[in-house]
Amino acid sequence: MFFERQVKDFINIDPLQTGGKLSEDAKKVLLEWGDGYSICDYCTGKLEEITKPPVNRFVEELKEFFECDEVRFTTGAREGKFAVMHALSRANPDKKYVVVDSNAHYSTLLAAERAGLNVIEVENSGYPEYRINEEKYREILESRNDVLLAVLTYPDGNYGNLPDAKKVSEACRGEDVPLLLNCAYSAGRMPISMVELGADFIVASGHKSMASAGPVGVLGFSKDYTKIVARWSKYRKGKEVEFLGCTARGVPLLTLMASFDHVKERIKRWDQEVEKARWFAEEMEKLGIKQLGEKPHNHDLMFFESEILYEISRKVKRGRYFLYKELKKKRIHGIKPGLTKHFKLSTYLVPKDDLRIVLNAFEEIIEAYKV
Amino acid sequence: MFFERQVKDFINIDPLQTGGKLSEDAKKVLLEWGDGYSICDYCTGKLEEITKPPVNRFVEELKEFFECDEVRFTTGAREGKFAVMHALSRANPDKKYVVVDSNAHYSTLLAAERAGLNVIEVENSGYPEYRINEEKYREILESRNDVLLAVLTYPDGNYGNLPDAKKVSEACRGEDVPLLLNCAYSAGRMPISMVELGADFIVASGHKSMASAGPVGVLGFSKDYTKIVARWSKYRKGKEVEFLGCTARGVPLLTLMASFDHVKERIKRWDQEVEKARWFAEEMEKLGIKQLGEKPHNHDLMFFESEILYEISRKVKRGRYFLYKELKKKRIHGIKPGLTKHFKLSTYLVPKDDLRIVLNAFEEIIEAYKV
Repeated sequence: MFFERQVKDFINIDPLQTGGKLSEDAKKVLLEWGDGYSICDYCTGKLEEITKPPVNRFVEELKEFFECDEVRFTTGAREGKFAVMHALSRANPDKKYVVVDSNAHYSTLLAAERAGLNVIEVENSGYPEYRINEEKYREILESRNDVLLAVLTYPDGNYGNLPDAKKVSEACRGEDVPLLLNCAYSAGRMPISMVELGADFIVASGHKSMASAGPVGVLGFSKDYTKIVARWSKYRKGKEVEFLGCTARGVPLLTLMASFDHVKERIKRWDQEVEKARWFAEEMEKLGIKQLGEKPHNHDLMFFESEILYEISRKVKRGRYFLYKELKKKRIHGIKPGLTKHFKLSTYLVPKDDLRIVLNAFEEIIEAYKV
Repeated sequence: MFFERQVKDFINIDPLQTGGKLSEDAKKVLLEWGDGYSICDYCTGKLEEITKPPVNRFVEELKEFFECDEVRFTTGAREGKFAVMHALSRANPDKKYVVVDSNAHYSTLLAAERAGLNVIEVENSGYPEYRINEEKYREILESRNDVLLAVLTYPDGNYGNLPDAKKVSEACRGEDVPLLLNCAYSAGRMPISMVELGADFIVASGHKSMASAGPVGVLGFSKDYTKIVARWSKYRKGKEVEFLGCTARGVPLLTLMASFDHVKERIKRWDQEVEKARWFAEEMEKLGIKQLGEKPHNHDLMFFESEILYEISRKVKRGRYFLYKELKKKRIHGIKPGLTKHFKLSTYLVPKDDLRIVLNAFEEIIEAYKV
């Protein structure tokens, strides 16, 4: 049976998808390594040590890329977060709290919940910028001694805000609480150094930001935590309990490897991507559509608020689905069906000419519907 | 960067790989849906409910196929086992034991270990058949009340033994202990009905036995356990904690879907596969290579013992790697490097003509080296 992807030739501004588009090299390895477990051809027991294809070399390159001591593959950022929380919790059963920014992805909360931990949320500044108050981490950590881990979303997937990770890591270091950075929307788009940001753990997502097929992710961490996070099974020497012995055992890992040259190149152009995002936001504002979140913005993922589109949706026949349907007609994908007042999008790697088409589309839709 | 798969045109008898070779339909969806998170094009919050591509319809087909009430996707059999153990353990914190057959895959032990559970092993009959004594399950379960879950490997990945699952499930039912069947090497190769076998949970592996790219698996279970295994997050309505909100979010799931017609057809020819395996084993025995495990054998995965090859390995220059290297020269893949005395292989979907080439290869190698 074959399933056609309907939006494949559309202009794609879906925040989930702009960073996960395969590179040409990645497309080639898909067929070559598509068969189940072909990555195990020469495996001698550990995914990260496979030499053909050179996974082991790739692990070393990733350590350098993220400036971390250890790298393990996961099936995504959320699985990395859970592995860290679960492992730390086992080592420190008395510490039952995770401090999390209030812009965190829902999977951070679920990872804590699954690990049996409670969540303390660090508030944001509210409308219109929703900035995380980094100082609050220090206040919370100073006031209690039952915090297992701090998590900072860098950036968050709603507003695309990039908080000051160094400020948070300094607070964590001062209170001896490890810090995990959720880099699902940054690692693979912009340069990320675990050392420079002062984190103990980072999680990255292949399908979100590293030009890979899903599901695959990277967990980078400091060697201080190797014995906890990568502890061996008592039943099988060398098999790591927290990763059930093996994780991303399939072709998504090959696409991650094949896209790595492309990823290393594209992060050098991050400044241009930010500049393009700011230009796009300004153009949207000219149409009366307001960009929320940090301003000026520092990321391609942006959240917009539109009273005009919302007012239209209250009057038209198709109601709140009209925007989605109009954009679909114009072959633009990425704004969720049913949203008009608040929606997010990403301009990452979308050519400026395509973004002009998107801007024209919004303008035309407003023109066509407004009374 | 491109990575070439060296063994792609080899005759493949690797037990990990014969059931995971992509169908032609699966190859086609790989490119169509390769981009990261393309499966989320029309997602409204739950993987199993996506309508384009028709994941929701596929879920219904799988329920029918495995005769189970509920289906969730996982990234493989081991992740399914851990999810079940972890969820049950949270609901029943006093029950700290899992009863497991001694032929279990190492990942069953790791799943229990990760979930903080202890393992009680049900012994096998030892050399040469290594049969699981199904009656032992009853004895163990009758003698204690701290057993959270029983696990039976059906068949195991070492000898390819198919124990009497019904006997085990009757014992479990009698003692009110749920049973999980690890069907990584059966679901997708032979007909598997959860109802008929009397299990409460089954785990299947897309990359091992359902003609899929990895990593993807299926967890089937009885509705008696929905509230425990598929419980919702207190933070996000509808998001299931034990699956971190979403699991196999990528193209491996599309290959699983695309291959399903092929899989439904091929399980009808299971008897022929068993017949072919038995023929192969007989031919190996004529060469002095003994098949261990159940006899007559009921699965394509077989374990062999060869004194002759072992004796050769002790004398030749390349030592225990000679067999692997000779087979490689003959373009045969699947016997692990370094093994001569004991090795496993699979004849699943390997044409009889290719198996004759394999048999000739063994014969020629023995002839060439024996003194």
